[in-house]
Amino acid sequence: MRYISDILIEKIIERKSPVVVGLDPDFEKMPKEITLKYLEKYGVTLKAVSESIMAFNKGIIDAIYDLVPAVKPQIAFYEQYGIEGLIAYKWTCDYAKEKGLIVIADVKRGDIGSTSQAYANAYLGHVQVGSEKISAFESDYATVNPYLGDDCLAPFVSYAEQAAKGIFVLVKTSNATSSQIQDLKVNGTDETVYDQVAHMVNHWNNQVVGDSGYSPIGAVVGATYPEELITLRSKMPKAIFLVPGYGAQGGGGDDVVGAFNADGLGAIVNSSRGILYAYLKCELGYAEAAREATQSMIADINDALARANKKYWV
Amino acid sequence: MRYISDILIEKIIERKSPVVVGLDPDFEKMPKEITLKYLEKYGVTLKAVSESIMAFNKGIIDAIYDLVPAVKPQIAFYEQYGIEGLIAYKWTCDYAKEKGLIVIADVKRGDIGSTSQAYANAYLGHVQVGSEKISAFESDYATVNPYLGDDCLAPFVSYAEQAAKGIFVLVKTSNATSSQIQDLKVNGTDETVYDQVAHMVNHWNNQVVGDSGYSPIGAVVGATYPEELITLRSKMPKAIFLVPGYGAQGGGGDDVVGAFNADGLGAIVNSSRGILYAYLKCELGYAEAAREATQSMIADINDALARANKKYWV
Repeated sequence: MRYISDILIEKIIERKSPVVVGLDPDFEKMPKEITLKYLEKYGVTLKAVSESIMAFNKGIIDAIYDLVPAVKPQIAFYEQYGIEGLIAYKWTCDYAKEKGLIVIADVKRGDIGSTSQAYANAYLGHVQVGSEKISAFESDYATVNPYLGDDCLAPFVSYAEQAAKGIFVLVKTSNATSSQIQDLKVNGTDETVYDQVAHMVNHWNNQVVGDSGYSPIGAVVGATYPEELITLRSKMPKAIFLVPGYGAQGGGGDDVVGAFNADGLGAIVNSSRGILYAYLKCELGYAEAAREATQSMIADINDALARANKKYWV
Repeated sequence: MRYISDILIEKIIERKSPVVVGLDPDFEKMPKEITLKYLEKYGVTLKAVSESIMAFNKGIIDAIYDLVPAVKPQIAFYEQYGIEGLIAYKWTCDYAKEKGLIVIADVKRGDIGSTSQAYANAYLGHVQVGSEKISAFESDYATVNPYLGDDCLAPFVSYAEQAAKGIFVLVKTSNATSSQIQDLKVNGTDETVYDQVAHMVNHWNNQVVGDSGYSPIGAVVGATYPEELITLRSKMPKAIFLVPGYGAQGGGGDDVVGAFNADGLGAIVNSSRGILYAYLKCELGYAEAAREATQSMIADINDALARANKKYWV
């Protein structure tokens, strides 16, 4: 079967780029030539923020769409700007898709079965209204929180199987206090909570795996925990890892090589702030700076993969 | 200090009602006199769904606002209807507030620090745009997923302390597969993952507690696990429990008494489908049926509390 994971793997190889650009808009950090224009036009309103986000994201997407396989809008940064923010979110997903990018909705949803079904409808699928199927915020992938167990994942997995969609399940996150729950040792063994989630992911992986050998059910594992990356890699050989924590959060190329399999594939590394706001640390315009930061991130990771004998290109 | 928990406790006593009505709209289950009207007016569109939800929720809120202290819109059921659905979500929160109800945003958010800050801004607070503070979807309470640890909770707690807001942290959820992660025994003890989350909640409770003796940092514990309710009650004496799983999910009055302290307080029990769609099982109109279902749920719980010698009224 050809799943979204197969398409992602193809794009990684084709663009020689296992990199995801995180689209996390921050109104205060955007170029003043954008924000002042819309503040002038719409006053100090969420409409001005929303228009600024769309203009900013368009500049970013236009600058990087040929370099990377995917983008990852973090919905929290849009939700905080209300309905207007979500209009910008939806526009961003649609525009990125139009430019040939895989869109990963970083929503970290998860709830009891009927509610998770609604979330899956919202981000991977559609609702039925009378005789029509209507999509709300349809993307290619969504991130999912596993705290409620398998029945919170099931509706998402169903879209993955039937509609060429995918998920990344939070396994080991990049933040400092991820250890509080995720690192607890369980059932008198040396295994942790995150290992248990890894087993859940691997269980799904054995049931749903694409032609490339990779499953549309992936895992989020932070770049900030390089050792855990390596052990988790061996526990979920068929999962694609979405790796946050590169750049602004501290991880570098050598920290993330453990996320990749011996074939040099199986991971995509995200950077958000380090790319979006690269212009604040140089003399370039924001779009050009983002392109340059993306190129140097790709080179950094490919170099690290080459050093580790994990070349996925020929 | 007077926190949102104190206001909630006062309203419970005043209305003699530890009950929350869950506002989980389901277009297919709403009365045809509502949905057909808007389908005729707006065609088979999300606008028709949104207008139907607002009309339906207005009927429900008008029917129950004097009976209960709070309502709990589950945002997934709005998100699946896109921007239009979220317009109905925001309208519902605002209208419920206008009618004097405490609004619990059932959003189950949680992320790394900067992202959780954005979620907290969205649901409990505001964003800063230039010189203005603007609110997106401001409510009184939000539900939060603890998988990422304390730094995912901190921005929400900050609003709880400074702006009379509150959270309910997912501890032990009501669904069947909640055991997969939540019930794992940790660190070679008999304690579970959910016990660890309970300790986190209790830790915050000892730092932030209101005049009523209850903290604005509460806990979600499912009615479907009556024994766990009792042991968790003793581990978080100052937390208000939000108890889902009554009614449609299987829990009854006697199942939830363990969620209450000896003073008869410290818990609110949610029912969604059992109230909203009560009209499907009787001859009444949907609003009248919802009112009757709410009254009989309140009586069921108060009777169970009286039998357990946990009367909170005089």
